[in-house]
Amino acid sequence: MKLYDYLPSGNSYKVRLLMSYLGISYEWVNLDIHKGETQTAGFKSKNPVGQIPLLELADGRRIAESNAIIYFLAEGTPYWPKNAFDQAKCLQWMFYEQYKHEPSIAVSRFIHNYAMEQRKDELPVLTKKGYLALDVMEDHLADNLWFVFSDSGGDGRSIADVALYAYTHVAGEGGFDLSKYPNIMAWLDRFSDHPRHIRITDKPT
Amino acid sequence: MKLYDYLPSGNSYKVRLLMSYLGISYEWVNLDIHKGETQTAGFKSKNPVGQIPLLELADGRRIAESNAIIYFLAEGTPYWPKNAFDQAKCLQWMFYEQYKHEPSIAVSRFIHNYAMEQRKDELPVLTKKGYLALDVMEDHLADNLWFVFSDSGGDGRSIADVALYAYTHVAGEGGFDLSKYPNIMAWLDRFSDHPRHIRITDKPT
Repeated sequence: MKLYDYLPSGNSYKVRLLMSYLGISYEWVNLDIHKGETQTAGFKSKNPVGQIPLLELADGRRIAESNAIIYFLAEGTPYWPKNAFDQAKCLQWMFYEQYKHEPSIAVSRFIHNYAMEQRKDELPVLTKKGYLALDVMEDHLADNLWFVFSDSGGDGRSIADVALYAYTHVAGEGGFDLSKYPNIMAWLDRFSDHPRHIRITDKPT
Repeated sequence: MKLYDYLPSGNSYKVRLLMSYLGISYEWVNLDIHKGETQTAGFKSKNPVGQIPLLELADGRRIAESNAIIYFLAEGTPYWPKNAFDQAKCLQWMFYEQYKHEPSIAVSRFIHNYAMEQRKDELPVLTKKGYLALDVMEDHLADNLWFVFSDSGGDGRSIADVALYAYTHVAGEGGFDLSKYPNIMAWLDRFSDHPRHIRITDKPT
């Protein structure tokens, strides 16, 4: 398999992280979004939306959207629950991540890291929305070790945790103070305590 | 089952539509978002995010996020493909819907219908993003009858079509001109040609 990626991307990191946990090896193609490398005609013929991550299978078929890719990789493994209700709850958190969490927390991080001059006016609204997204996670984690406890034979983690970990653990780069969220902090530690954990900055070898 | 809903919501309409296609009967609870009926402590104890649609099962367990709900209802039916690749493509389009399509097209419709005075400055950017979202759909439909052809024994439709139909068919209310999109227009006609099709304005009986 081949992963089209951009190393600092949390969306791509979800895929790298799950492949590491599952022991899957793959070819890594790093594209620099700041140099327009995802906007070329060549890349858009692979993904018309012009975004990474993009997973290309050995037979040439491709899957876009980070959470769809990690579903594909997790299906049949401990990271995807067995029963339909828990599967739906897993997707519920993953849609939450893409609708409420990523557009506020990941975009704040992007602005802080790359576009402070041009886009700083967006930060007050994004910050408010991001803290609301974190509040919901904090409340859930008061009574739960994981976002959904997967009954598929692993340690309980599911791809809902993978999806939410990606941008939560770097929320500080977007100006968010996680010290106000003890349950989230404990969950981040619990999640990263895995023998094959990798950091977002670790280049695949 | 009980569906917490708001009749004009396209996200809720996805659930109503699929329940109609599948012949599922349910109790309907209409909440007026403009009167704050999804922001009460009572409703937030059911869904901490304070949003409809929310599906409550007979045993009291609940699922939020429209696309997670339609996954739950579709699993084991013709609307959810059998093989893992097509399942991932189905989710790819559903995440696309929630990340690229709904935040531009549904939000434009909301502003046109309810908040023109307060939020009209958002429309130029939302309009541009919405047309980009429609362009990707138009290109895909040039070569495909459905977003993913489900191999699970139905007519080929999947919940990816259900998810994308909901706000596309009312994009005109958000100021979008669909006459420039012949493939989308043909797909909308094809999709609504179903013996149990209902309109977004049809109250469940």
